[in-house]
Amino acid sequence: MTQISTLTLPQPYLLFLGDVAEAPFAKTAFGLRDWAPNLCVGEFALDGCAISTGLPRLSPQEAHDRGAKSIVVGVAPRGGRMAEAWIPALVQALGAGLDVISGMHGHLEDTPELAAAAARLGRQLIDVRKSPTKLPVGSGRKRTGRRLLTVGTDCALGKKYTALKIASAFRSRGVDADFRATGQTGILIAGGGIAIDAVIVDFAAGAAELISPDANEQHWDVIEGQGAILHPSYGGVSLALLHGSQPDVIVVCHQPGRATLLGLADFAVPSIEDTIALNLDLARRTNPAVRCAGISLNTDGLTNEDADAVLAQEAARIGLPCADPMRGGAAFEDLIESCLV
Amino acid sequence: MTQISTLTLPQPYLLFLGDVAEAPFAKTAFGLRDWAPNLCVGEFALDGCAISTGLPRLSPQEAHDRGAKSIVVGVAPRGGRMAEAWIPALVQALGAGLDVISGMHGHLEDTPELAAAAARLGRQLIDVRKSPTKLPVGSGRKRTGRRLLTVGTDCALGKKYTALKIASAFRSRGVDADFRATGQTGILIAGGGIAIDAVIVDFAAGAAELISPDANEQHWDVIEGQGAILHPSYGGVSLALLHGSQPDVIVVCHQPGRATLLGLADFAVPSIEDTIALNLDLARRTNPAVRCAGISLNTDGLTNEDADAVLAQEAARIGLPCADPMRGGAAFEDLIESCLV
Repeated sequence: MTQISTLTLPQPYLLFLGDVAEAPFAKTAFGLRDWAPNLCVGEFALDGCAISTGLPRLSPQEAHDRGAKSIVVGVAPRGGRMAEAWIPALVQALGAGLDVISGMHGHLEDTPELAAAAARLGRQLIDVRKSPTKLPVGSGRKRTGRRLLTVGTDCALGKKYTALKIASAFRSRGVDADFRATGQTGILIAGGGIAIDAVIVDFAAGAAELISPDANEQHWDVIEGQGAILHPSYGGVSLALLHGSQPDVIVVCHQPGRATLLGLADFAVPSIEDTIALNLDLARRTNPAVRCAGISLNTDGLTNEDADAVLAQEAARIGLPCADPMRGGAAFEDLIESCLV
Repeated sequence: MTQISTLTLPQPYLLFLGDVAEAPFAKTAFGLRDWAPNLCVGEFALDGCAISTGLPRLSPQEAHDRGAKSIVVGVAPRGGRMAEAWIPALVQALGAGLDVISGMHGHLEDTPELAAAAARLGRQLIDVRKSPTKLPVGSGRKRTGRRLLTVGTDCALGKKYTALKIASAFRSRGVDADFRATGQTGILIAGGGIAIDAVIVDFAAGAAELISPDANEQHWDVIEGQGAILHPSYGGVSLALLHGSQPDVIVVCHQPGRATLLGLADFAVPSIEDTIALNLDLARRTNPAVRCAGISLNTDGLTNEDADAVLAQEAARIGLPCADPMRGGAAFEDLIESCLV
């Protein structure tokens, strides 16, 4: 697996919860627990922390003794900046032999106490959102191996989870497959990747090319999508990722009932059909054989009956398999079949 | 004119030619002489420089005495790095009261002698390619005023010159119009703008929104396009600029006879028709009223007769005005009429 210029993270992790009081602030920690439990030896929390992932609560030294290689700041700080109270805890983790990994916007190196401790102890401070330097411009060169990219009608509706579930289903069938991460939580789960939204736009397609390198002809890369082609804020990210991924197959992710774009109430969510057509039109540029294998519907919040009804209705209307990968079942098997045809 | 987070450059300029021996290395200096002669008080060259813009050759002090506010490094250094021999000359310019402006990839601040001299003398070092900090994410909010964006079938075929010529033709007709720059040479000509290709991809549409701010309803911003939607390296740049510019009018730029993309010989140049259709499809997302007013053909190298024949033939085939803005004439008048309808 070539990983030129992409991150490779020291695993397994100790999950740092800081002193947060509410679970939504620890989204990354919970995501890692759910999607990569074998990579998480435990959690480390400060006094006042009111949540738990349910993993063993360990000191950095105990975690190190159980094989942890790094501590992950799996919580979003209020205001985006590192809380003062976290610094001595992370210095303690460095002292126990753990590298520190952060998905925060700010850089760990910018906290002088951490920079000094890491330098003194010879440990790494790794910012998952930091773009690698020396990225190439996209070349459009066709790479070997097969690729699937999840694309969306909007942001935050299941592109990462769909890719994880598809990669896992491929492997269950004996298909050689890697999940390829393009965002911070995905990178922590995969142990590598590039946060594509943090790259200079001139190099975004080049970064996407690096994320899914040449592989053997039977190998599948299942690539986490970002943004949406018809999103006024993030269309550029999505197009660079589409061109650079040169997918053989796209799976369109959608949330039934979402009428307007998240955070942009003046913009209607585009139709699934328009999203398929536009993505295929654009994707043909770097892979003329691209096709849409089906739809991933996020039916979170619906009853099983309602979800099944929506999936059947949309499959009939669009003429492609529709499944909620989180529910699995026969519909998801159909979607996987359609991907692997 | 709002210019939040966009550059504003100290003008007029002294053009620095360094010690270059061949005109192509001084493309930016020649572009400024041709497009903004009133902004150039003269040129400053070192011993061994074998070229001239034809402007008065002045010392930094002489240029300052004639009103120059800055010296522009209008030459591309071999290997992208500042030549040792240039440093004392630029320090001399700082001492004469000029700010230093560079369009090179490297940052002026990274040359310690320049950083020290600028700090000591209270002068600015301005890197045109450096992205402004604190850019917003694109909002998609409709802005007041009218906008034209030049788009292309490929890179480097006349999107900047077309925008400059159209803005100038608009003004000749008494239409209130600004050229809006998105690349380094354009920014030097306009005295402001953002080098969109140097922006973090998540903020590229937001940067495009800043480049053409709210204006009065009769005002036109004529925006310099970048890249091409169907370019495997730069599609993301082009889409972010298209969404963020929310143009009322696009003009498609093309070079007849160019069969494959510059530097990507495996990729055919897309057809003008496909380029129109795809750009309009995508641009409707932020401006449903967008239309294509015509085609700008780069007929450089053709005889007048051949150029006229190509323009007439393409106009008849596509059903839209086709002109070479550098040749002007009735065809260009038709294109301008079509833009202003």
